[in-house]
Amino acid sequence: MAQPARMSRAEFDALVEAELPIAARLGFRLDEFEHGRAVARAPYAVDFLRPGGTIAGPVLMALADYAMYAVTLSMVGHVALAVTTSLNINFLRRPEPRDVLAEGRVLKLGKRLAVLEVTLRSEGEAAPVAHVTGTYSLPPR
Amino acid sequence: MAQPARMSRAEFDALVEAELPIAARLGFRLDEFEHGRAVARAPYAVDFLRPGGTIAGPVLMALADYAMYAVTLSMVGHVALAVTTSLNINFLRRPEPRDVLAEGRVLKLGKRLAVLEVTLRSEGEAAPVAHVTGTYSLPPR
Amino acid sequence: MAQPARMSRAEFDALVEAELPIAARLGFRLDEFEHGRAVARAPYAVDFLRPGGTIAGPVLMALADYAMYAVTLSMVGHVALAVTTSLNINFLRRPEPRDVLAEGRVLKLGKRLAVLEVTLRSEGEAAPVAHVTGTYSLPPR
Amino acid sequence: MAQPARMSRAEFDALVEAELPIAARLGFRLDEFEHGRAVARAPYAVDFLRPGGTIAGPVLMALADYAMYAVTLSMVGHVALAVTTSLNINFLRRPEPRDVLAEGRVLKLGKRLAVLEVTLRSEGEAAPVAHVTGTYSLPPR
Repeated sequence: MAQPARMSRAEFDALVEAELPIAARLGFRLDEFEHGRAVARAPYAVDFLRPGGTIAGPVLMALADYAMYAVTLSMVGHVALAVTTSLNINFLRRPEPRDVLAEGRVLKLGKRLAVLEVTLRSEGEAAPVAHVTGTYSLPPR
Repeated sequence: MAQPARMSRAEFDALVEAELPIAARLGFRLDEFEHGRAVARAPYAVDFLRPGGTIAGPVLMALADYAMYAVTLSMVGHVALAVTTSLNINFLRRPEPRDVLAEGRVLKLGKRLAVLEVTLRSEGEAAPVAHVTGTYSLPPR
Repeated sequence: MAQPARMSRAEFDALVEAELPIAARLGFRLDEFEHGRAVARAPYAVDFLRPGGTIAGPVLMALADYAMYAVTLSMVGHVALAVTTSLNINFLRRPEPRDVLAEGRVLKLGKRLAVLEVTLRSEGEAAPVAHVTGTYSLPPR
Repeated sequence: MAQPARMSRAEFDALVEAELPIAARLGFRLDEFEHGRAVARAPYAVDFLRPGGTIAGPVLMALADYAMYAVTLSMVGHVALAVTTSLNINFLRRPEPRDVLAEGRVLKLGKRLAVLEVTLRSEGEAAPVAHVTGTYSLPPR
């Protein structure tokens, strides 16, 4: 894990800006980015809310997917057409109306598939609001 | 299944408008809405795209969640705090840049949990682009 | 779907006998086997029970995995090292102490991954006891 | 987490012996058992093998389910009819023909649902062979 990331954070940001408008539109950004690990942030926005005054599930899923994308690219570099093949989320606690942080890490990097885990928390809270596992398909290198 | 839905489509739309701004903001709407079944539509928008010119996974997940919400409320009516507890998605094919339809149906309506299945297709295509199962927690009635 | 299966049922049975002792030991067998679809049966055994007098979850998971294996091999033939990469199960109803049938079908056959769906029912019941989705990794052909 | 487990290991073993014959039959036992955490062991048996000489997926799923059951009961005591409602597994590496250890921990203990995570490893290996999340439904207390 002492390897450097295969792209810089600035390169990742530029890639998202150009190619993942959904993440850019929702205001997502990276707090940390290293080989095999990333922390993504969803700055709080009022239209993230759902009934009950908590943050909507789709925002958490989009943030987890963005974090998984960052973790994957940190390991394989800019690979055209790396795509999510599956995502499983368990919603654990209702997220307060504040920033959400998603800490992603690799469980397994294979030749054709990366398996990743993401834990989501409201900023300043220890207890997770959601837990995600997912897989990214990697094109032949 | 011959039961009527527990709310009207107009009531569901008003609820989403007021309480699920994410779905409204993404332009989601219902094509069909009956007891235990709904078809939701994501009208194509250019910022749904992801690298490769296909529709981003988070849009599909948000649409599936919206369809699951519709199916759940069609069976239990307007229940405050019905919340998604888990969602599992398999991405099957790259969705073309056009409308996506999500057909949701109930697998099991229990006292405390509803289990739902959603199949997503690009409009006019038979082969699904994604398959989702998920659970909604129901408050005591 | 009018294609024939890529192996015979007898070949599949011999393969399981030799190479999947767990399934053979649990008494699993196929009721139907065609290209992209299979129905597997777990004949009732008293040691399948769990607290409450219903059939244990692991038996259902093993049966679903066996059905997925049959569906996959029906499409690709005897491929060494085709392996399950993920499995998601929702338990829907408590299965009565009787035979369980698992109907598996393909959602997507790709070059490197097959995605499958399995619906499990107690024999003679329409309502499913469990619903499974899973993926099989396929070696380069 | 400094709380004691709500039952003893001997009570748990007796419960499994009487009520979970599948786990007993497969030889599963606990190496560790505390409030909210357990380590379960599957002693290697030759009929756990699948094609390729690795341990079959259903054995890993059964072991994870057994570990989740231990973690759940460690927190709520002997609750009749606590049942698995969902389980998601990602297979990460081919498990060698040796003992498998499954470390389970709680992600969230709610009033009606416990969400759990299990990491499975071959004995003596750091890299996990599988990762599981699952939910247990808890009866009203």
